[in-house]
Amino acid sequence: MKLLLTLSFDGTNYCGWQIQPNGMTVQQRLTDTLTQILGSRPTVNGCSRTDSGVHARRFCCDFIIPEGKEHMSDKLMHALNALLPPDIAVLSCEEKPDSFHARFDCKGKEYRYNIRLGTRSPFTEKYSYPYRRDIDDELCRRALTCFVGEHDFCGFMSAGSCIKGSTVRNIYKAELLRNGNDVTFAVSGNGFLYNMVRIICGTVLAVNEGKLDADSLPHIIDEGKRMLAGPTLPAKGLFLWDVFY
Amino acid sequence: MKLLLTLSFDGTNYCGWQIQPNGMTVQQRLTDTLTQILGSRPTVNGCSRTDSGVHARRFCCDFIIPEGKEHMSDKLMHALNALLPPDIAVLSCEEKPDSFHARFDCKGKEYRYNIRLGTRSPFTEKYSYPYRRDIDDELCRRALTCFVGEHDFCGFMSAGSCIKGSTVRNIYKAELLRNGNDVTFAVSGNGFLYNMVRIICGTVLAVNEGKLDADSLPHIIDEGKRMLAGPTLPAKGLFLWDVFY
Repeated sequence: MKLLLTLSFDGTNYCGWQIQPNGMTVQQRLTDTLTQILGSRPTVNGCSRTDSGVHARRFCCDFIIPEGKEHMSDKLMHALNALLPPDIAVLSCEEKPDSFHARFDCKGKEYRYNIRLGTRSPFTEKYSYPYRRDIDDELCRRALTCFVGEHDFCGFMSAGSCIKGSTVRNIYKAELLRNGNDVTFAVSGNGFLYNMVRIICGTVLAVNEGKLDADSLPHIIDEGKRMLAGPTLPAKGLFLWDVFY
Repeated sequence: MKLLLTLSFDGTNYCGWQIQPNGMTVQQRLTDTLTQILGSRPTVNGCSRTDSGVHARRFCCDFIIPEGKEHMSDKLMHALNALLPPDIAVLSCEEKPDSFHARFDCKGKEYRYNIRLGTRSPFTEKYSYPYRRDIDDELCRRALTCFVGEHDFCGFMSAGSCIKGSTVRNIYKAELLRNGNDVTFAVSGNGFLYNMVRIICGTVLAVNEGKLDADSLPHIIDEGKRMLAGPTLPAKGLFLWDVFY
């Protein structure tokens, strides 16, 4: 029987989602805990690979609960929440057809990048990028709008990243939200390249600072050269906000 | 010259505000950092003693900047924010008359206690009390209202606490705020006894659970016996929210 888990995690103390040899990851912590509960080690498929330090308000993953253990699925969420550390929570657990796959069946995702203006706050320190200047909301909104639609984003992925297949992605929405000194860039789309959201947000801030012209963004996107875009912002401001199926 | 500093701090890793021999406190960290900047050790007066693990959205304190160092006051806030750890931030620094005292001149304070219902969240884990039941908003509001006004709160301070003078306090406001699964009790008044807010909130939850009757609260307050009130809730949900002068 296949189960879909929806998680929420604080990525501060993890080397991202995917299991790797040199540090603790969310996938490893979850797989270890499932092994402890089920008595055998499941293969857990995540909806994406989040980077080291990136947070998730929602993150989806699937695994097969072994035959003879199906009766445990009802209590699995409570057992996981009792055993997982405080920085990972299970929000829901639902049954899916065997053909379901958390990554391949994902229709889209929303990421949010938090920027903190003015004096720093101890409570948002781990969850936002401190920015020393003002933000021109209208200018940044104009810049964000340039990314909406279907584009080849090969200039907006980290150099050296290895992508199989197309670098064309469809961005559904790219908005600026403001709550006083807290500014958020919300970007949703059918998929994202490695570091793509952090580079888009760094490019919008380069426009805000007058280092790039908003009118040149369509051209910069078309050119497809990483060096023309803005910097990659730090991981800690980034949240995987929602996952759509 | 006397300066008033307004701070914000995450109390998770501190044994409260006040300097003590057995652990790091916010007052100690701040005093050490001021000593590093000013070259001499000032006496820092806080607006209250917050307990171990309690947070402050706003906390006020004063100290005298030594003669000959007055010119540093303009840049002091930036210097402090550069040298203090991420869990303590200075929000403002203003000049006050020499007679000013952060504690004695304080006209009142607002505390807020956060309660998290439903599934736990990694992002509010350090800042709220997880509560397994539902909250009856109207019943809790009725219970909170009983605390408003001038009362002798000697039954609402931790047993064994040593108070010089009166245990009469005036509560200006006691409200319930709700945002989905996040419930907050907001209590403001002219002063608070040791653990008073945490005991008031524990008593309101006892009413919510049917262990105490809301109609009996005026009597319980009048009786002045700690054993009649509800339990002391954990520190991590409590914020010193505002300080009034």
